[in-house]
Amino acid sequence: MTQLQTILNPILDELASVDDRLAEFSQSSDLPILDELLQHVFASKGKRARPALTILASGFHQHDKSNVITMAAAVEMLHVATLIHDDTVDEADTRRGRITISSGWGDRLAVLVGDYVFAASATFVCDTGDIKVIRRFSQTIMELSRGELQEISLSGDTTGNLAEYLQRIYFKTGSLFATSGESGARLSGADPREVDALTSYSRKIGTAFQIVDDILDFEADEISLGKPVSLDLVNGVITLPTIFAMENDSIRHLVQSYFDEGKHSGILDEIIRSIKECGAINRAHDYAENLSREARESLILLPSNPYKESLEALSYFVVARVS
Amino acid sequence: MTQLQTILNPILDELASVDDRLAEFSQSSDLPILDELLQHVFASKGKRARPALTILASGFHQHDKSNVITMAAAVEMLHVATLIHDDTVDEADTRRGRITISSGWGDRLAVLVGDYVFAASATFVCDTGDIKVIRRFSQTIMELSRGELQEISLSGDTTGNLAEYLQRIYFKTGSLFATSGESGARLSGADPREVDALTSYSRKIGTAFQIVDDILDFEADEISLGKPVSLDLVNGVITLPTIFAMENDSIRHLVQSYFDEGKHSGILDEIIRSIKECGAINRAHDYAENLSREARESLILLPSNPYKESLEALSYFVVARVS
Repeated sequence: MTQLQTILNPILDELASVDDRLAEFSQSSDLPILDELLQHVFASKGKRARPALTILASGFHQHDKSNVITMAAAVEMLHVATLIHDDTVDEADTRRGRITISSGWGDRLAVLVGDYVFAASATFVCDTGDIKVIRRFSQTIMELSRGELQEISLSGDTTGNLAEYLQRIYFKTGSLFATSGESGARLSGADPREVDALTSYSRKIGTAFQIVDDILDFEADEISLGKPVSLDLVNGVITLPTIFAMENDSIRHLVQSYFDEGKHSGILDEIIRSIKECGAINRAHDYAENLSREARESLILLPSNPYKESLEALSYFVVARVS
Repeated sequence: MTQLQTILNPILDELASVDDRLAEFSQSSDLPILDELLQHVFASKGKRARPALTILASGFHQHDKSNVITMAAAVEMLHVATLIHDDTVDEADTRRGRITISSGWGDRLAVLVGDYVFAASATFVCDTGDIKVIRRFSQTIMELSRGELQEISLSGDTTGNLAEYLQRIYFKTGSLFATSGESGARLSGADPREVDALTSYSRKIGTAFQIVDDILDFEADEISLGKPVSLDLVNGVITLPTIFAMENDSIRHLVQSYFDEGKHSGILDEIIRSIKECGAINRAHDYAENLSREARESLILLPSNPYKESLEALSYFVVARVS
C-alpha cells in the first residue's frame, strides 16, 4: 500500500459513499449535455484530500454518518467547481489526465457548469441543516475566488511580502481545508475545543500543502522540457521560495528585471538556479514542515484512535509528497 | 412619475437601504481591484424588479425589516452575478450603459468576480438564518445556470416545443423571481397559503417578464441598424414568437434552413417579417398577459394595502414595458 492508501484505509467505506453521491449527482440533472459534462469531471478522482479530511475529522464522536458523507461530497464538489473555473481562466488543456471542459466544450459551457457545481455543492451543504456549517461554506466560496483575484491582481509584484503570501494561500487553499475539517468535526457533534483543534489542524496542513505545491512548481516541466520552468514565475506569481530568495538583493533585482523586461527565458533560468542554490527551496520546505508539526500538535487534546493516526500520517504526507 | 416609480413609491426607503447594503458590500473586500470592480457593477442600477418583489411580498405582516433588506440585496447580487457571467460567455461589450467586466478587465477577472458575487449573495442569505430560504436560494443558483446551459445546448434546435421553452425560461428567470417573492413572504412571517400565493404570483410575472423580453428581442437593433435583427435567432435561441410562428410549416422550413444553411441575413429578414405578419408576436403577448392576469388572481386571498396595489401594478408593468 502507498502511504496515501494507508492513511485512507480507515475511511474507505465512507469515501466509497462519497463517490456514490458524486456519481448519483452526475446523472441527475435531467439535461443530457450537463450530465455528460458532470460525469466527465467527476470520473477522474483527485487526491480526495478534502473529503478525507471531513470524514477523518468526524471520527471522534458517534454520529449519523449521512450528514458527514453529504458534507464530504460537497467539499469535493466545491473543489472541482473551482478547478473548472481555474482551468477556464488559465486556458488549461488537461486536468487529472483528462481534457478540460473549457478546451473540449468551450468557455461558455465551462463557466456555466462551474456555476452549476458551485451551487449544487451549496445545496448539498444545506442538506446538513447546520446553519454554522452552511454559512462557513458560503464564506469559503468567497475566499476561494478572492484568493485567485488576489493572485491575479498582484501578478508581477515583487514586493515579496510574506504576510500577503500567507493570506493569499489561506484564501486559495487553507480556507477550504479548514472548512473541510471544521464541518466534519461540527457535524459529528465535537465540542468547541475539539472543533477548534481540528479546524486549526486542517488550516495548517492546507497551508503546508499549498507551500509544497509552490515548491514543486520549481520542478515543473523538468521532464518534458529537460529543464525546470516555474509556471508561477512565468505567470508573475511570487511564492515562498522566491520570497525567501529575494532577501538577497541581487536575486530581487534579477526577478524585477525578469518582469520589467518582458520575461526573457534566459533570466528565468538564472532566477531558478539562484533560488535553488541559495537554499530558499529548503527554507520553504522547512516552513511547511513546521506547519505540519504545529498541525499535529493541534491534535493533542484528541483521544488516540485510527482517525487520529490517519490525521497524523496525513500531516507527514502533505509535506513529503513529490507530485 | 413614471409607472415604475409609482409602483416603487411605497418601498423607497427599503430600496434605499438595499442600495446602502450593496454600496457597503462594494467597498468591503479589502482588495482594491475587487472593490473597484464591485463598485463598477453595482454603480449602475437596473430595474431592481427582484429586490422590489422581495420587499413588496413582505408587506403583509409586521416584521423586523433587516432580514428582508438583506434578502433583497442578495437577490439583486445574485442577478448581477449571473449578468457578469452571461456577459462573459456572450462576449458582450456593455451592460446597463457601462462597459462589462469581461470586455474592460478580461474574462479571468470576470469569471472570478462573478464567483465572488455569487458566493457573497449566498452569505447574505445565510444571515437571515432561515434554512428553507437558504436552501431555496442555492437551488435557484443551480436553476439559473441550468437554464443558460439548456439554452446553449438546444441552440439551433427547431423542434419548437412549448413545454421546453416554458421550463427553460422558468430556470432562466422565473426561478429567481419566485425565490425573490417567496423569501420576502417567508421572512415576514406569512402563513403557508400566503407564501404559496406570493410565490405563484412572482413565478408568473417572472415568466411574463421573460416572454416580453423575448418579444422585445424582435425589435432589437431596429434603431441602430435601421432594421430589426433578432439576436436570439442569430444565437440559435428559439423563443415563444418563433414557436408560435413555426406552427406554420413554411415558416418552420424557413427557420430550419436559416440554421442549416449558415444563417444568411436575407433569410433572417424574411423570418422576422413572417413572424410579425402571422400574428405570432401578438399571440406571445397575449400569453404573457394571461400570465399577468393569473398572477393578480394569485393575490386574491391577501388583504388590500399599498403593497398589494404595487404588486398588481407591477403585473401590468411587466407586460406593458417597451424596453
